[in-house]
Amino acid sequence: MKIAFDVRLEGAERADWWRALTDALPDDDWLDPAVEGTQSARWREADIAVVANPLPGRLAGCTQLRLIQSLWAGVDRLLADATLPASVPIARMVDPMMNRAMAETAAWAVLSLHRRAFDYAAQQRQTQWRPLPQKRADEVAVLVLGLGQMGRTTALQLAALGYRVSGWSARAQDVAGIATSAGWAALPAALGAADVVVNLLPLTDDTRGLFDRTRLAQMRQGAGLVNLARGAHVVEKDLLVALNSGQLAHAVLDVFDTEPLPSTHVFWFHPRVTLWPHAAAQTDLRSAAAVVAVNVEAVRRGETAAHRVDRSRGY
Amino acid sequence: MKIAFDVRLEGAERADWWRALTDALPDDDWLDPAVEGTQSARWREADIAVVANPLPGRLAGCTQLRLIQSLWAGVDRLLADATLPASVPIARMVDPMMNRAMAETAAWAVLSLHRRAFDYAAQQRQTQWRPLPQKRADEVAVLVLGLGQMGRTTALQLAALGYRVSGWSARAQDVAGIATSAGWAALPAALGAADVVVNLLPLTDDTRGLFDRTRLAQMRQGAGLVNLARGAHVVEKDLLVALNSGQLAHAVLDVFDTEPLPSTHVFWFHPRVTLWPHAAAQTDLRSAAAVVAVNVEAVRRGETAAHRVDRSRGY
Repeated sequence: MKIAFDVRLEGAERADWWRALTDALPDDDWLDPAVEGTQSARWREADIAVVANPLPGRLAGCTQLRLIQSLWAGVDRLLADATLPASVPIARMVDPMMNRAMAETAAWAVLSLHRRAFDYAAQQRQTQWRPLPQKRADEVAVLVLGLGQMGRTTALQLAALGYRVSGWSARAQDVAGIATSAGWAALPAALGAADVVVNLLPLTDDTRGLFDRTRLAQMRQGAGLVNLARGAHVVEKDLLVALNSGQLAHAVLDVFDTEPLPSTHVFWFHPRVTLWPHAAAQTDLRSAAAVVAVNVEAVRRGETAAHRVDRSRGY
Repeated sequence: MKIAFDVRLEGAERADWWRALTDALPDDDWLDPAVEGTQSARWREADIAVVANPLPGRLAGCTQLRLIQSLWAGVDRLLADATLPASVPIARMVDPMMNRAMAETAAWAVLSLHRRAFDYAAQQRQTQWRPLPQKRADEVAVLVLGLGQMGRTTALQLAALGYRVSGWSARAQDVAGIATSAGWAALPAALGAADVVVNLLPLTDDTRGLFDRTRLAQMRQGAGLVNLARGAHVVEKDLLVALNSGQLAHAVLDVFDTEPLPSTHVFWFHPRVTLWPHAAAQTDLRSAAAVVAVNVEAVRRGETAAHRVDRSRGY
């Protein structure tokens, strides 16, 4: 099959993906847009497109596509391309290794907040020796927003660490051993009961700007916010107000409205912000290439690909 | 029974312990040295001493002691008091909540090293946006030194997070599911196979100065050291040389030769040192008071107290 490799990444990373994917599926006809051109007959005859950060419009002429496979878990930017052939199934990346990485980052952030690691880092900069009161994990209520693959893995990991974990999602989801609630009407109470909120929601029309002034005010005073999903979930200026007033004690942010975060952005310098450069869960090349291969083989056999995106939901 | 309360702590903390212990054992005759004096007949008739940071010599005249109960897990400073009545059993604090807190701190430190949190913190200070390569947890070998209550809880917690965990102890110990080695001859190989070493050994004549130039050189180049046990386990100037040369990538230190760490000490300012103010695992008042009560009741019934210290071993 012809597979369009529409992967826009810097330097070695693009070549690493090319190698991993062509190694995993060596008998297919891989199309490099830099070689073929995206207006070529071969490109337009592609059976499958494997995409990461694609430019809008590049798949508009591919009339024979049977699957668009994203290398990323989040497909909000992909779906924003109005020229995407409407009838072609889209599959998200669901990589167990990436779920694990996300759960690790969430565990690190929650442990850091619970055990005062950011406060101790500030004290170290001030050569201040002051042990701070220590809570038990079961005294710390953690709310995980979003109970997809990443949210579930994260909620279970946090529960295994002893935290009082609950989960919320837009539509009802069960997670064994975790108290869950669902629907927008239930969100204020869920937010108000949490010491730490971990956001792992997909970015959709419903969740864009979720953490605005109103929702931040519904959180517990002195709570922590951990945003590992998308920058657009948070109204940055409202978060800043909440941090400055003490309504929130600390924010751990991996994602931002503009990435890379501009070097003049106040989040770089804010004592109550800890930021990572969109590194909470990088796709693991090795396991992700195997996930792509499974879906390509499914298409080859005329079967349905796994982890299909519901375009009406937006994820 | 008469219980000597030989607890030397600052301000409210001493009063909190007094309240928690007298609440847990309301019918006993608690002796406050500030009220009774340590030369009084009543003090010298104490049946049990409950101690934390005691001054040497204060129990020398207590000829009827049947138990010395430490509120701390580490008893190295207590045993250094040569006037301690030689035949009186000593019990360490073994508090499940304290074990959990230690495992949390170790998990936080290992996650921070594995997922590059200290590097991202340095990048934030430099407004530098640079995702760093991400390893899987099972690619990170963690060695836990010391397989007592805290070491075991920590090793199991780290294994549950997916790390490749092994354990070493001076005398052979089994921990379900964890590869262990024992004895001084096995230590260089164990150190050389680890990306992160977590020290939870007791401080004894054998372990004092353990991390000297020789042992630090036996570790993997670029490894991380997490010392949550006692400052005297580490030869501080040798550690500094190892950090400066890059032999070690980072040290997470909770304990020091001198505590509080003097404000002029280089560790405060070193970019490869993250320090906490001896706060890795504070004794939890509530659970610890219950642990003391169980031992006091055992003595009252003429039975043996739990978690007895072997003075010849030093812990």
